[in-house]
Amino acid sequence: MHSVGICGSDVHYWQNGRIGDFVLRKPMVLGHEAAGTVVKLGSAVKHLQIGDRVAIEPGVPRDVDEFFKNGRYNLSPSIFFCATPPDDGNLSRYYTHNANFCYKLPDNLTFEEGALIEPLSVGIHACRRAGVTLGSVVLVCGAGTIGLVSLLVAKAMGASKVVITDLSQERLSLAKQLGADFILTITKEDSPQTLAKSVSDLLGTPPGMTIECTGVESSIQTAIYATQSGGVVVLVGLGKEMATIPLVNAAVREVDIRGVFRYCNTWPMAIAMLSSGKLNVKPLVTHRFPLEQALQAFETTKQGSGIKVMLKCDKNDQNP
Amino acid sequence: MHSVGICGSDVHYWQNGRIGDFVLRKPMVLGHEAAGTVVKLGSAVKHLQIGDRVAIEPGVPRDVDEFFKNGRYNLSPSIFFCATPPDDGNLSRYYTHNANFCYKLPDNLTFEEGALIEPLSVGIHACRRAGVTLGSVVLVCGAGTIGLVSLLVAKAMGASKVVITDLSQERLSLAKQLGADFILTITKEDSPQTLAKSVSDLLGTPPGMTIECTGVESSIQTAIYATQSGGVVVLVGLGKEMATIPLVNAAVREVDIRGVFRYCNTWPMAIAMLSSGKLNVKPLVTHRFPLEQALQAFETTKQGSGIKVMLKCDKNDQNP
Amino acid sequence: MHSVGICGSDVHYWQNGRIGDFVLRKPMVLGHEAAGTVVKLGSAVKHLQIGDRVAIEPGVPRDVDEFFKNGRYNLSPSIFFCATPPDDGNLSRYYTHNANFCYKLPDNLTFEEGALIEPLSVGIHACRRAGVTLGSVVLVCGAGTIGLVSLLVAKAMGASKVVITDLSQERLSLAKQLGADFILTITKEDSPQTLAKSVSDLLGTPPGMTIECTGVESSIQTAIYATQSGGVVVLVGLGKEMATIPLVNAAVREVDIRGVFRYCNTWPMAIAMLSSGKLNVKPLVTHRFPLEQALQAFETTKQGSGIKVMLKCDKNDQNP
Amino acid sequence: MHSVGICGSDVHYWQNGRIGDFVLRKPMVLGHEAAGTVVKLGSAVKHLQIGDRVAIEPGVPRDVDEFFKNGRYNLSPSIFFCATPPDDGNLSRYYTHNANFCYKLPDNLTFEEGALIEPLSVGIHACRRAGVTLGSVVLVCGAGTIGLVSLLVAKAMGASKVVITDLSQERLSLAKQLGADFILTITKEDSPQTLAKSVSDLLGTPPGMTIECTGVESSIQTAIYATQSGGVVVLVGLGKEMATIPLVNAAVREVDIRGVFRYCNTWPMAIAMLSSGKLNVKPLVTHRFPLEQALQAFETTKQGSGIKVMLKCDKNDQNP
Repeated sequence: MHSVGICGSDVHYWQNGRIGDFVLRKPMVLGHEAAGTVVKLGSAVKHLQIGDRVAIEPGVPRDVDEFFKNGRYNLSPSIFFCATPPDDGNLSRYYTHNANFCYKLPDNLTFEEGALIEPLSVGIHACRRAGVTLGSVVLVCGAGTIGLVSLLVAKAMGASKVVITDLSQERLSLAKQLGADFILTITKEDSPQTLAKSVSDLLGTPPGMTIECTGVESSIQTAIYATQSGGVVVLVGLGKEMATIPLVNAAVREVDIRGVFRYCNTWPMAIAMLSSGKLNVKPLVTHRFPLEQALQAFETTKQGSGIKVMLKCDKNDQNP
Repeated sequence: MHSVGICGSDVHYWQNGRIGDFVLRKPMVLGHEAAGTVVKLGSAVKHLQIGDRVAIEPGVPRDVDEFFKNGRYNLSPSIFFCATPPDDGNLSRYYTHNANFCYKLPDNLTFEEGALIEPLSVGIHACRRAGVTLGSVVLVCGAGTIGLVSLLVAKAMGASKVVITDLSQERLSLAKQLGADFILTITKEDSPQTLAKSVSDLLGTPPGMTIECTGVESSIQTAIYATQSGGVVVLVGLGKEMATIPLVNAAVREVDIRGVFRYCNTWPMAIAMLSSGKLNVKPLVTHRFPLEQALQAFETTKQGSGIKVMLKCDKNDQNP
Repeated sequence: MHSVGICGSDVHYWQNGRIGDFVLRKPMVLGHEAAGTVVKLGSAVKHLQIGDRVAIEPGVPRDVDEFFKNGRYNLSPSIFFCATPPDDGNLSRYYTHNANFCYKLPDNLTFEEGALIEPLSVGIHACRRAGVTLGSVVLVCGAGTIGLVSLLVAKAMGASKVVITDLSQERLSLAKQLGADFILTITKEDSPQTLAKSVSDLLGTPPGMTIECTGVESSIQTAIYATQSGGVVVLVGLGKEMATIPLVNAAVREVDIRGVFRYCNTWPMAIAMLSSGKLNVKPLVTHRFPLEQALQAFETTKQGSGIKVMLKCDKNDQNP
Repeated sequence: MHSVGICGSDVHYWQNGRIGDFVLRKPMVLGHEAAGTVVKLGSAVKHLQIGDRVAIEPGVPRDVDEFFKNGRYNLSPSIFFCATPPDDGNLSRYYTHNANFCYKLPDNLTFEEGALIEPLSVGIHACRRAGVTLGSVVLVCGAGTIGLVSLLVAKAMGASKVVITDLSQERLSLAKQLGADFILTITKEDSPQTLAKSVSDLLGTPPGMTIECTGVESSIQTAIYATQSGGVVVLVGLGKEMATIPLVNAAVREVDIRGVFRYCNTWPMAIAMLSSGKLNVKPLVTHRFPLEQALQAFETTKQGSGIKVMLKCDKNDQNP
């Protein structure tokens, strides 16, 4: 392994030992945003060679069930997934993974770009399910890693205007640098209807789709009120199990509410976009630590400073 | 006008003077489920002749806006709609309507079948947005008029199994006669999770799509828990403005939540299906009154006995 | 194995040793429309038990490539497929197949219905790619096995009217019995434009989609001329490599031309439909022979009498 | 009127008096790529004011038929279309048009950009029907105006790689400047299969979709051979009525063949993209003539030099 990013879920397992129904019963290796080099290959593998630099898709369906056959393998209930109990992750020196879910990196991509394909894939899957296309006007709620990659992907898919919201002015500044057309600093006191109006005023029109990345109930409410009739709200952020939302408002305006669970079929297009230079995720990496300083790296992520923390697992190569 | 069905919304306006933000400011003619005979034509009308029997689509967009151009004219905010304030309905002897939204009835359809295309259209739009197709397994919540037409449409679209739920055993009996594969009598005490499991046990699999026709919060919760990962919940029934629902459960299983607002582009396919005999809505009419007895007809609907009450507006022809 | 149907391609390999680029280099077992009983299981198989009656999907992807991951595994270039060189088929007493592509038959389905899921799947895939839905008006060109199953599927998917054409009055009579709304006997002298007009006159409207099952150039031309603007022509029948067609007519009316290559994701819905009684394929079997009389069975198919010839591979049970 | 571009079809009517079945029976004003200023308004118009600068969508449906209601109004057979007989175009000083098909230009767009929305719309409609999305690999055949706008749109929709072909090295140079990732000069002697292989070799993979803008039979053949299994060939260029194409190759690889007829629902997204700066069509204008020199302008277009010739209809303002 070369580079492994730390995700909020890694920190959550470390601190709480569980996320929802996924409970740690025994020690688990963390890490699922990863890239490395092939050092050994199964005899049946044809598309890779020893020495290939690869990005790793952490979810591997175990069963060829109806979800897998239909092209939505992320929904397969028995899927293996790095660092989701009881499956170990890949934050380690060496790691074995199904070769069908290892994707060769072109020479012009770094290992870190390879590792960042994992969070980028969430943004791709979200924008794809939102139906972002040429001329779309998009609202992204939350300017953390997922909000930022959603912004990048929406722009690359042809969105004409993207507005992104956050409580933190610092995060919004980065969003602006990454291409946000508008930023909107919000406070906890703003009512959802008021925010929806602010969004519409900023854009000159209600957004056709909203990518909700916070999971906060009031933000989900804002997303619904803000979205144009006939549009889509995609739920990426997850909050509490039960949420109170303006369902009649959504229903009578045919604003669809769609969740995303991880992603599927994103690595090849992500590699194509990064390699073509049309997407640039490098600015997302704000911190790097050698694997030996993993604890410090996790503390940094826990404190919420910066965007993406990378752990460098290869003693001989700590480059991006 | 020949036959006009009474809808729950007609009764609601009569009793309450408003539905949500639509408030009666002056007297309004009720009625929007209607069929009649052409007695006069504008000079530009080419597709109709005097004497043609027609079904009337009550919603007519006033503006050629983006919704109309995109084929979703039901979402046009300035749309004219019969018996939605301030627009008058068509429960009368004579009525003028945009000819483009009057559809000629084939000889083998009755006026009442023509009038029933309106509620049938809600079922068509709901099943279409649900994505019902060959082999679909469908849950319909609520066995009122809309639940029943959704059942009929789901079967006609190729559903292999439809289960329908209601509090009333009587309604479920009619549903069974109309082709429901399974019926499930529920009580107000059943928990949503328990009901979801009952549905799954009955069908042998979770339904791929659920058509929720009650608007009751617990039923919406049941709809979400019951629906298969990757499936769709369509909200047809409308309840209170804010609803508390298991949004995380829906999101992580990519169960989409889609509303329906009336319908668009349904009359031609409805006529085709009724005329071919593949759909039969005649059993839905349980009561008939001459227009002179409109008050009695409305009382009957208000009391909830039977399914569909028809008002007969033509003194010389009170046939179906 | 219990029942294996004979397909035109089986006869073609037997007579010509090749179909297009697929050339027999060594002897090959024929047969790919099959059902049987599980007599042995791999240790990892969870969804089947010894004694289960199963229908066999003959195509099994060998590689987890992009096609497989995207849900279109039929397009995977390295797919295994029964009785396509160099892969052996299953017209035999015993046969080993990937368990993920063996589907348990409900008790109310016969082995022959299980075997018929293979040709039925072609019809399902064709109608699905045609976009047949509620109220569709459909033209099916050719009343052989595939034309007939396309007719059955189109009706089950909600088509309001289906017209089917053939040179043979006998085949069309069976089509009529199976539910065709209209039949049209054609002759080799009819011009495509004339036929297109006849179809439109019969239906009262041009068909929204055409399922072309003959592969004959003039019939493909008819399909294009006949189909409504904005509609779809699906090519199921295959003829000569190069075809001369009215491409400008198709293009300026946005009539899409879509091929089908076998099928994917059809067995579960086919089983659901057959088991529910909404589809009935039993009348398609017109001849049965014990495996010992395979030569005679193939001669029967070659002569083109009847529709589907079944070979009975189980000495102890020659029932349907 | 301010600026009107000359299209190949304008030249064709001028020279030949007909295009296919559209025959000139009386003199006709040419021009359908246009922008101007509102000088007078019908009393019912709400969304425009006198003095507004507008782009004109030349097709206006006359009937509210099923095509219009379904959102595909371009297929309405009775549509009015500028400079298609018998309808006059807008190459003139003053012109009256349905206000619903006049779109206000933002201050940061020029009249010429407004006029160029018409050819741009062909590219948008083509790429939309091709399904271009994030990471798509696209082949564009022909580097005339339509090929170039298709290139621009494909990139804006997220294509990772676009290769464009032409006989003319000069046109390809402009394509390269406009963002083509690869250019391929072809000769009339190249066989379609050879060209398909060259395309695949250049891209490192077969294109997922091909936008065919020449209408030449051999180029359509190349498009089919070149496109990846499961992909799409969009026919924009129109050639002779009957074309001989490798239909079996397309069918068994499920390569869909889709035509485009003009466009629908493109002006709003085109304005959004041009105004956001994400699309730049200005380099397409290579010549400008005052209206008085229309003959010279048409001769220039006829000779095929440059890309787009603009006629300036406003005596007082000949700016872009």
